[in-house]
Amino acid sequence: MSFPFIEACRGRATDRTPVWLMRQAGRYLPQYRAIRSRVSFLDLCKNPELAAEVTLQPVDFLEVDAAILFSDILIPVEAMGMELRYEPGPVFTNPVRDAAAVSALRVPVVQEEVPFVYEAITLLRQELQGRVPLIGFGGAPFTLACYMVEGQGSKDFATPKRLMYQAPRIYRELMDKITETSRRYLEAQITAGAEAIQIFDTWGGILAPTDYRRFVLPYSRRLIAALEAHGVPIIHFVKGAGAMLETVREAGGQVMGLDWCTPLGRARDQLGEEMAVQGNLDPSVLFAPEAVIEDEVRRILEENAGRAGHIFNLGHGILPMVDPQKAAFLVRCVHRLSSGG
Amino acid sequence: MSFPFIEACRGRATDRTPVWLMRQAGRYLPQYRAIRSRVSFLDLCKNPELAAEVTLQPVDFLEVDAAILFSDILIPVEAMGMELRYEPGPVFTNPVRDAAAVSALRVPVVQEEVPFVYEAITLLRQELQGRVPLIGFGGAPFTLACYMVEGQGSKDFATPKRLMYQAPRIYRELMDKITETSRRYLEAQITAGAEAIQIFDTWGGILAPTDYRRFVLPYSRRLIAALEAHGVPIIHFVKGAGAMLETVREAGGQVMGLDWCTPLGRARDQLGEEMAVQGNLDPSVLFAPEAVIEDEVRRILEENAGRAGHIFNLGHGILPMVDPQKAAFLVRCVHRLSSGG
Repeated sequence: MSFPFIEACRGRATDRTPVWLMRQAGRYLPQYRAIRSRVSFLDLCKNPELAAEVTLQPVDFLEVDAAILFSDILIPVEAMGMELRYEPGPVFTNPVRDAAAVSALRVPVVQEEVPFVYEAITLLRQELQGRVPLIGFGGAPFTLACYMVEGQGSKDFATPKRLMYQAPRIYRELMDKITETSRRYLEAQITAGAEAIQIFDTWGGILAPTDYRRFVLPYSRRLIAALEAHGVPIIHFVKGAGAMLETVREAGGQVMGLDWCTPLGRARDQLGEEMAVQGNLDPSVLFAPEAVIEDEVRRILEENAGRAGHIFNLGHGILPMVDPQKAAFLVRCVHRLSSGG
Repeated sequence: MSFPFIEACRGRATDRTPVWLMRQAGRYLPQYRAIRSRVSFLDLCKNPELAAEVTLQPVDFLEVDAAILFSDILIPVEAMGMELRYEPGPVFTNPVRDAAAVSALRVPVVQEEVPFVYEAITLLRQELQGRVPLIGFGGAPFTLACYMVEGQGSKDFATPKRLMYQAPRIYRELMDKITETSRRYLEAQITAGAEAIQIFDTWGGILAPTDYRRFVLPYSRRLIAALEAHGVPIIHFVKGAGAMLETVREAGGQVMGLDWCTPLGRARDQLGEEMAVQGNLDPSVLFAPEAVIEDEVRRILEENAGRAGHIFNLGHGILPMVDPQKAAFLVRCVHRLSSGG
């Protein structure tokens, strides 16, 4: 029982390069939109049967090498006592901006407060029957803090940065609570059956490398160390971190997720043989004709130069306007070209 | 008559590090907001007297080492025949998405169609009387294309990327027209009296390095080469390019603008002695207490390690919520610490 995806996470050679796509369960699939026409995004996350169903859709359709739980990184944050809405981007009606608000946050007993996450994982393991491994995931503490302090998405997240600089103690108390919540949340995913964990640090790259080191790295490292003790591979994806990979590397994990702005070959040279990598096709390339997609797959495989420990993926989530047939072509292309076809 | 700013652009040693701030004429200044309460953003850009007045405000208040023309990168695009509104972000009501729309674009006779730009420069040179040099500026062709095709700002500019991959000939025809417009627009700024030119490529960093090389570099290089022939320093700022500085360097220019995600010391090592650098404080640091600002200035000066050819700046535009006193403190701090104070 050795999945190519897990083998590659562990830096071992595989017959062909395993591939999955970030947000592979999502809006570009008509079968996903059919379900979403009946149920809101948040209700879908909280319904184990439906969450499991949309998780499996791309496994059936794309024949990817891993399933990733359909959920949202803000689910555990809502359980900390924050009011979450999607309109359609996430909005917290009560952003956390002072000591009192941080104190009021709870570190939830996740099994009781977000049981649907673990029920979905249990269901999925049953339904997958070992076809492909199941990836669990969560947000990195800093990315969660960005949303909690800003209250919504932002171009520059000036509000959390201001808190970080003006009130570092409050910031650190907040990060401690988020890190502990995330630890519980993700350990319980592993206990429920997640066979790998991806940490998404969508906003870690908005910081100068020196600030990343001071304000982000200690928390991501603490979280990843706790999860690594459980023996499943940890994928750490910090978007926009191409100029500070060595620093991000110190957070640990077996696999570094790479966005498309980071040359994969150079990243591997910098990170060394010990660390596997995941990535890194520009999601927009799926708008291109098949010949261009094939050229890009070939280029990325050539940048990897046959090294073990490469999981093919996009450099960020698949875009909603993508033709599902193009996504399926990409997966076939990776399999074919990486097995000498 | 040797300005420290110009000397540093040319890679020569200066008594103290010159400093200016991107968007130093802007919303964080009450004296700017006072004028904007009477006139719209676009009308302000088009009124030479008022544009000159707001250009000078930060020169008086901050005592920076350079003035930068108050204007907007989309001014020449409007003159190509596009309808521009601010609500408050830029919106083109007729985005360019097919061959017919590209054909319909004009390459304007800039002196006739945007005369206010050149009148403002003439006025400014008179009013500055050699106090500090005047920087002119424009958008890089790719960044202008992003707005023209998408029609507005965007997280991922999927529409221009789709055009680039699906219809490379139409994309290249568009880029040719923009590059020629930009060449005329910026050459006329130099003729009118601009003593340096900054090219803003705000979105160049959203591309994979291989795509940057194919779809952006030829146009930026062509534009910069034409401007360099006039003998004024060219600053080339590509945001988010930390993982492909060597590629961006091939576009030419005397100074590479660095965002705050790129370690300045490593960038200098990569770029070599021939190229000056500008940057790279995180604009959010201006929310921090003065002691933190001072530490960050010291860190950046230490990363530069006394090398000639460093212009201090933020890594992107100053944020609207910043206290003007903090900006003035920053400028004093750079001057004091870089002159051994």
